[in-house]
Amino acid sequence: MKIHDWPTGPYPARVRIALAEKNLQSRVQFVLVNLRKGEHKKADFLAKNYSGTLPVLELDDGTFMAECTAITEYLDALDGAPTLTGRTPREKGMIHMMSKRAELELLDAISVYFHHATPGLGPHVEIYQNEEWGLRQRDKAVRGMHYFNAVLQGQPFVAGEAFSMADITVIGGMIFASRVRLPVPAECEALQAWYRRMQERPSVKNQLAMPAPTDT
Amino acid sequence: MKIHDWPTGPYPARVRIALAEKNLQSRVQFVLVNLRKGEHKKADFLAKNYSGTLPVLELDDGTFMAECTAITEYLDALDGAPTLTGRTPREKGMIHMMSKRAELELLDAISVYFHHATPGLGPHVEIYQNEEWGLRQRDKAVRGMHYFNAVLQGQPFVAGEAFSMADITVIGGMIFASRVRLPVPAECEALQAWYRRMQERPSVKNQLAMPAPTDT
Repeated sequence: MKIHDWPTGPYPARVRIALAEKNLQSRVQFVLVNLRKGEHKKADFLAKNYSGTLPVLELDDGTFMAECTAITEYLDALDGAPTLTGRTPREKGMIHMMSKRAELELLDAISVYFHHATPGLGPHVEIYQNEEWGLRQRDKAVRGMHYFNAVLQGQPFVAGEAFSMADITVIGGMIFASRVRLPVPAECEALQAWYRRMQERPSVKNQLAMPAPTDT
Repeated sequence: MKIHDWPTGPYPARVRIALAEKNLQSRVQFVLVNLRKGEHKKADFLAKNYSGTLPVLELDDGTFMAECTAITEYLDALDGAPTLTGRTPREKGMIHMMSKRAELELLDAISVYFHHATPGLGPHVEIYQNEEWGLRQRDKAVRGMHYFNAVLQGQPFVAGEAFSMADITVIGGMIFASRVRLPVPAECEALQAWYRRMQERPSVKNQLAMPAPTDT
């Protein structure tokens, strides 16, 4: 398998953490897609992923699989013993719900803020920006932090009693918040305590220690 | 189980089609949430689903499960014989990818167009609109129709050789397109032929024949 990504990106981080949680790193070869040069918006890459986003998993038969949730479903099912996406119907449903909510209310909102209301990846990549929408999404993400804080006051993990894909998605949001210097409100103590616990996991700790590629 | 929804909404349609495909309708009681009155944005409903969207599944123990993909995962797993969300790792991954892509590039884009660049659900519900963003999303949805047309030129169903959750998500997009009078381009013949075939399925035919609730 190959993963086409930018190693320190918040979305690539989700798949890299999932790979580490499943002990699959040695089965994967990484291919750098230069975000800063906008390679993910060029025809060659769009043929691999119509949506022009990273990461993309390339299977050995040449099939391209995009979208973090889809890739995580695939990786988690490979050994027949899912640990990230749920075993029972209820676990599957709650993990998918909380992971999607973490995208809507946190990670994707910060992404829109970054690409629309900050210089983002620079003028050669951000050819259209809607600042007002971007700022709205920033405010939505801050409300999202308060929501996840409330969730984590009542349970140890984002989707309940066990670590799952939903925690990884919120971790992606925390990585992106840090990247765009969007502070986690001081009163979100349960969210901050949870994030400190997450950083004790080798999969997360190693991802956060990864250096950004030098420009080529 | 209960489903809180608005019976003819494009997102509720996704879960109602999934219920019919799994023959689970008789196990569900429907609770009307009046979209036109904005009941889905009021505190009582937001306590059930933080994101303020329909549909929401309520389990017998009082747990609320939101997000169509999550609810479909749950319903499809109940009988231990998934037919909508994939059996093999590869099927799971490809179905989740194509379903997410159908949200991003078609259904969610039309939703943003509807709520931001048309009167939407009316001024008492659409308290903030960003018309420019809405029009951009409309154009994105039209490009999305061309993309799915190209996919369906090469395979009979959205995620490959079998009907799946990904088809249901594109059907949701087609329902929403029709609702907002966004025409499917005439040259998208494969997409139109696929949609005619989908409407031969009882699950889809019955959903499309459903009358909208009269205002109460």
